[in-house]
Amino acid sequence: MPRRDTAFLFDLDGTLIDSVYQHVLAWKEALDAEGLDISVWRIHRKIGMSGGLFANMLLRETSLPITEERLDRLRQRHADAFNRHHAQGSVRPLPGARELLAYLDAQTIPWAIATSGRMETARHNLEALGVDPAKVPVVTRDQVRHAKPDPDLFLAAAEQLGVDIHQSLVIGDSVWDMLAAQRARALGVGFLSGGYGHAELQQAGAFRVYADPADLLQHVDEVAARD
Amino acid sequence: MPRRDTAFLFDLDGTLIDSVYQHVLAWKEALDAEGLDISVWRIHRKIGMSGGLFANMLLRETSLPITEERLDRLRQRHADAFNRHHAQGSVRPLPGARELLAYLDAQTIPWAIATSGRMETARHNLEALGVDPAKVPVVTRDQVRHAKPDPDLFLAAAEQLGVDIHQSLVIGDSVWDMLAAQRARALGVGFLSGGYGHAELQQAGAFRVYADPADLLQHVDEVAARD
Repeated sequence: MPRRDTAFLFDLDGTLIDSVYQHVLAWKEALDAEGLDISVWRIHRKIGMSGGLFANMLLRETSLPITEERLDRLRQRHADAFNRHHAQGSVRPLPGARELLAYLDAQTIPWAIATSGRMETARHNLEALGVDPAKVPVVTRDQVRHAKPDPDLFLAAAEQLGVDIHQSLVIGDSVWDMLAAQRARALGVGFLSGGYGHAELQQAGAFRVYADPADLLQHVDEVAARD
Repeated sequence: MPRRDTAFLFDLDGTLIDSVYQHVLAWKEALDAEGLDISVWRIHRKIGMSGGLFANMLLRETSLPITEERLDRLRQRHADAFNRHHAQGSVRPLPGARELLAYLDAQTIPWAIATSGRMETARHNLEALGVDPAKVPVVTRDQVRHAKPDPDLFLAAAEQLGVDIHQSLVIGDSVWDMLAAQRARALGVGFLSGGYGHAELQQAGAFRVYADPADLLQHVDEVAARD
């Protein structure tokens, strides 16, 4: 059977895994510990962008000096707090995530994962999804120069799959995914499962918006190009 | 000086206090403990509505029987988890909240608070804001038959202030506040500080949208009618 043209390039946190809100409060805890007072919704709206840009945002929105040392402590405190949520078992695949990936496999539709996180934190999520990074392309922050909203992660994922990025879908829950999709000239598909509203995703370039992986699976004919 | 016509009727959680995300994960913890698997963003989108309607949502979105006993356990577990966040000190007034209330007092503009929560949980928040419920009308779930999106809480607040609800602003962070504003024929003002997007609030009826209390204070001439 000939390989289909439309590849599915997925974000991970908030798109396949229900983890955005735990990341948000883990950052809140880390920022509080450093005396950085930032409203929680502002943290939420930055989740999924590159850590370096997140640090730049902190530089602009607080008056405290942001040193390399402080950034390291922030990252460590966030990781500790997030791993506590993970240990409590509250971080799980989103409805339909495993089923959607199984469907794509069954249809021999190529897919990959591209995340602004590092392999260190992504590993647990991939296990929960039953994804073996030896068999499926998984591009993490470690492998590219710039993370989202730069397009590098998705470009690398398409390259690893050997597909044309212009024929690919970039599927994510944040505006950073949608902006990266536009910059890569891919088609952005937004999920509400990260807590952004429908219009926010559309305004950032999503050509379709679904609730979550289960909702996309139910409407997959709307986005999957045929041979 | 004659009393101005425009009264300010505030929601509490997410509007004056930065507490929405802690409520969301406290509900997640409570639901998980009862074996009810609901995506976190779906919980987020229900925060601020009446507890009874929240329970109806659970009835529809899960297959487990929702008994009165289970609802009581859920409420207790949510309260315990939320109080843990409170004890950690992460729940604080939003930027500009105290300053906005002080400004209204200085201008002798009438204001009140109307929350879907109960006085039991609101008390900590009022203390943090420096609001004395003996001096300022505070309408809680305990005092009305129906909470948001029904208009009862805001109607009661206007009545306690002795102002015309049609000349009042209903200020909140959730679509439930904006729907209640429309049903009360008040003017809805939305805040982004609860994590809803701009368009969601506008579509629910907000005639203006600001980031948070600090942003409204900076633009208060846009909404405060003069004598």
